[in-house]
Amino acid sequence: MTFAATILTLYPEMFPGPLGVSLAGRALAEGKWSLNAVQMRDFATDKHRSVDDTPAGGGAGMVLRPDILAAAVDSVAPGVPVLAMTPRGRPLSQQRVREIAGGPGVAILCGRFEGFDERIFEARDIEPVSIGDYILSGGEIAALVTLDACIRLLPGVMGAASSGMDESFETGLLEYPQYTRPQLWEGRAIPEVLRSGDHAKIAAWRKARAEDDTRLRRPDLWERYSGARVQPPSGARQQTKEE
Amino acid sequence: MTFAATILTLYPEMFPGPLGVSLAGRALAEGKWSLNAVQMRDFATDKHRSVDDTPAGGGAGMVLRPDILAAAVDSVAPGVPVLAMTPRGRPLSQQRVREIAGGPGVAILCGRFEGFDERIFEARDIEPVSIGDYILSGGEIAALVTLDACIRLLPGVMGAASSGMDESFETGLLEYPQYTRPQLWEGRAIPEVLRSGDHAKIAAWRKARAEDDTRLRRPDLWERYSGARVQPPSGARQQTKEE
Repeated sequence: MTFAATILTLYPEMFPGPLGVSLAGRALAEGKWSLNAVQMRDFATDKHRSVDDTPAGGGAGMVLRPDILAAAVDSVAPGVPVLAMTPRGRPLSQQRVREIAGGPGVAILCGRFEGFDERIFEARDIEPVSIGDYILSGGEIAALVTLDACIRLLPGVMGAASSGMDESFETGLLEYPQYTRPQLWEGRAIPEVLRSGDHAKIAAWRKARAEDDTRLRRPDLWERYSGARVQPPSGARQQTKEE
Repeated sequence: MTFAATILTLYPEMFPGPLGVSLAGRALAEGKWSLNAVQMRDFATDKHRSVDDTPAGGGAGMVLRPDILAAAVDSVAPGVPVLAMTPRGRPLSQQRVREIAGGPGVAILCGRFEGFDERIFEARDIEPVSIGDYILSGGEIAALVTLDACIRLLPGVMGAASSGMDESFETGLLEYPQYTRPQLWEGRAIPEVLRSGDHAKIAAWRKARAEDDTRLRRPDLWERYSGARVQPPSGARQQTKEE
């Protein structure tokens, strides 16, 4: 089955961009996902193809008009989640990425200027999503991030060996640190245990390092992880941990 | 002054990609920033130009070798921060983006496969950075995110009117919702206050909405913001609030 990505944007020429290369590029060529980058100006109704207007109440910049946004969103085939990339959105999580990648596709609305007229979120079923606590010049690169995260999880895109289940966030922890040859580099050796061949010891060391690093580097993740673990196991608790 | 971006990557053809268009593309053409995408394989020492090897202790995928990474990092002109994009890194913040954009440039190491040999972080002054709690196929799109966030803040890139100081995260809050014409759309009106022309009332309404939305949507940001505010003002407290 082909995962169908629709991008609603003022810059369709930005796509596939980096997703036309490497892992995602090969998967695109093989038909594992499809891309339709739609020019939002095509939904404008005046001869200047305007999509934006000045902010009500004043202020710098321009705001994307709700009628244009609605026409663009209404053109998307039903049955796929519609995301809008905006710093006001819910932070993107690996959990949400897995859900989207498990579905038939996704439509992504890319903001520019000062963003979207808020009424679009009341009038249409659109999920505001933020990729992080920083400001971009537009939603296009955020859409590339979201797509890349989804595409690598599609069936047959990563090798069977790399299911990615060990990676950061999949377990609620950061991933353990990795090492490779040379064994001794600039006087620094690979940790002894990793050369022991003792699989149980290696697994225990990696778990301990993942826990240590998460506690030190990401107290926010650690709190959620350890909070979920000290509770008696139950469906609801598991849910919390995975969120 | 030109902000100099150096990208160390296995896919230099991904750059400038979307940063060659629109705001960042114009700024690149005008010399407000420069881009040097360096192929990491150029630092390999064997005829196959290998940059990676199997993970010590076993496991799927490949790990970038510390000696190759070090040679690549050592080739970067000194005086700019060196970032490595990795899910194990510190979350990118608007605060850090502003700091980087205020400097002479940045070098960004893009991970692929299972990531970097951990020793590189002990042996070189490299800042591990994560753009969010999800997994990408590589660090290239994360580097595009970081660059885009920096470039829009460079002098002369955004219009003087759009200093961006009102936006999400700059104040520790999400940005207030925006509205534009049409005044009445699908039975939904722009909030009355925004049409009042009363600038003080508009500012108060926007602040209240920014606070409400932050509290409801991002309790994590709200806790930091309100925690910083209830303390008596001091240099140290201000610092906490800005972080």
